[in-house]
Amino acid sequence: MAFLFILPTWPVDVWTAAMKKVAPDIDVRVWPDRMGNVTDIEYCAAWLPPPDVVKSLPNLKVIMSLGAGVDAILKDPTLPASIPIVRVNDPDLTGRMTEYVVLHVLMHHRQQRRIDENQKRKIWDSFPTHAAKDLRVGIMGMGVMGMDSAIKLRDIGFPVAGWSRSRKSVAGVESFAGADEFDAFLARTDVLVSLLPATPDTDGIINRATIRKLSRTGPLGGPVIINAGRGRQQVEADIISALDAGELLAATLDVFATEPLQLDSPLWSHPKVTLTPHCAADSDPETICAYVAGNIRRHQRGEKLDNLVDRNRGY
Amino acid sequence: MAFLFILPTWPVDVWTAAMKKVAPDIDVRVWPDRMGNVTDIEYCAAWLPPPDVVKSLPNLKVIMSLGAGVDAILKDPTLPASIPIVRVNDPDLTGRMTEYVVLHVLMHHRQQRRIDENQKRKIWDSFPTHAAKDLRVGIMGMGVMGMDSAIKLRDIGFPVAGWSRSRKSVAGVESFAGADEFDAFLARTDVLVSLLPATPDTDGIINRATIRKLSRTGPLGGPVIINAGRGRQQVEADIISALDAGELLAATLDVFATEPLQLDSPLWSHPKVTLTPHCAADSDPETICAYVAGNIRRHQRGEKLDNLVDRNRGY
Repeated sequence: MAFLFILPTWPVDVWTAAMKKVAPDIDVRVWPDRMGNVTDIEYCAAWLPPPDVVKSLPNLKVIMSLGAGVDAILKDPTLPASIPIVRVNDPDLTGRMTEYVVLHVLMHHRQQRRIDENQKRKIWDSFPTHAAKDLRVGIMGMGVMGMDSAIKLRDIGFPVAGWSRSRKSVAGVESFAGADEFDAFLARTDVLVSLLPATPDTDGIINRATIRKLSRTGPLGGPVIINAGRGRQQVEADIISALDAGELLAATLDVFATEPLQLDSPLWSHPKVTLTPHCAADSDPETICAYVAGNIRRHQRGEKLDNLVDRNRGY
Repeated sequence: MAFLFILPTWPVDVWTAAMKKVAPDIDVRVWPDRMGNVTDIEYCAAWLPPPDVVKSLPNLKVIMSLGAGVDAILKDPTLPASIPIVRVNDPDLTGRMTEYVVLHVLMHHRQQRRIDENQKRKIWDSFPTHAAKDLRVGIMGMGVMGMDSAIKLRDIGFPVAGWSRSRKSVAGVESFAGADEFDAFLARTDVLVSLLPATPDTDGIINRATIRKLSRTGPLGGPVIINAGRGRQQVEADIISALDAGELLAATLDVFATEPLQLDSPLWSHPKVTLTPHCAADSDPETICAYVAGNIRRHQRGEKLDNLVDRNRGY
């Protein structure tokens, strides 16, 4: 049995070292140049795998995605239908996403960019502020990550609502479900956070029309968006035009239609945009490798795999 | 009966309007030019009152501080010993301090300044990151605010310890008490947060020797300080020299020995310093006025006052 890493955009040596440390008995191979005999390969872990790689592994039994999103894996037209796909969704990853969401909601809430600007100009300005209870946060995508972020933001004092396919029951968090309740969810939201998976239903969901439906009565003087879901969900030209038209106060974006973001994108230098390099829920190699090795052993013992992806649903 | 505002550095009209809204029956006077007959004045609320003002009020019964710190009131040498001093310490103020502490711990933890710098230079850099469990936060001052910050940081996943005069029992938060345990507290701390009250014991506590005792083994490559307590606690020249010598990685300062901070202070433009204008726990005028009016009515009915200051202890 051998295990293969397919990580075209990541520093693969970090990952082979981590795997060696947590599971020294596993025979680790690396795409594309340390594949060895491909018939040995029964398990693989991938992030943004190129199409056709999976097809070339005749004895593959399980594909593991090294991030929470599996859209890049699912869009491979040659992906064999019979191979189960597992999503990495460990507590470490969830915690990191929550850190990111809490940080960026608080940065907007506390107007840290305005304070930064004042510091640069040596201005001591005591502008009026509001408390967390006055700023309504809305989270699109209430999976494990969305739920955890909602709970932490609720505990800090923000009124939080979630929007998801099915209704969720989280104490003190309002739940909106399905397309019918989308507009009502937006109308009560001052800060919109997207943690949605990438599916055809969510492509382009953060567009000009959506932005226009957000609350304009919040304490910041306009709505804010934070996208830590997938770049395909945002219409980047719409975000820029909404910012420039004053329909959107600010945006924090961790994901982009093309990554790395092209150098000529106006997002880089837009004064209302905070841009982070798809680092919201960074994978810690050792934690993830321990999870991957655990899944391999479970599968070898004939046990159920954790976090199996539903291909029809897309996550 | 009349009530007096003594607010030399704040926009007093905002406060008189708030008081009128929440307690229209109270006769509100304003120092120095709307005092009326001073013998009417039985209650006052102050922030940074000049010395001698309180002494000039012959029938004063209670002094209320409009911030959690009462050091400016206590340092008035003419302050009559018999007048009780009450500290405003409402949940709104505590919540705001927690927002500030969580925001600034997360900004350092997630290296947001490095990401900001990269955005400015259009650099998409996926540097290695760590999880909250890897960054040890230490809070000096475990009153109502310190406890609440500790709990929220613990819930996000940070290992948290508190240092205070007496030992505190908070689940999942390590407690260090007294001068004997100060060095051990510093040695396990990667991010030091000060929420201490200003007392002679805490003056200058954030100095070069203290900074040198902080952990140097944390994931950020050096220790960080966040001071949202009182400016007198920090030796500003020591902070700058520790930053420049690489003994301190970064500092977030909300309070200063002199406020507003003088324009010629090197803190304004130091690349490792985030400077906020004493806004960590901003008072919301209406919330605070409702608290002040409630305290007046309690005192008039002969009931016990909330949050009485112990003058010997200094808070």
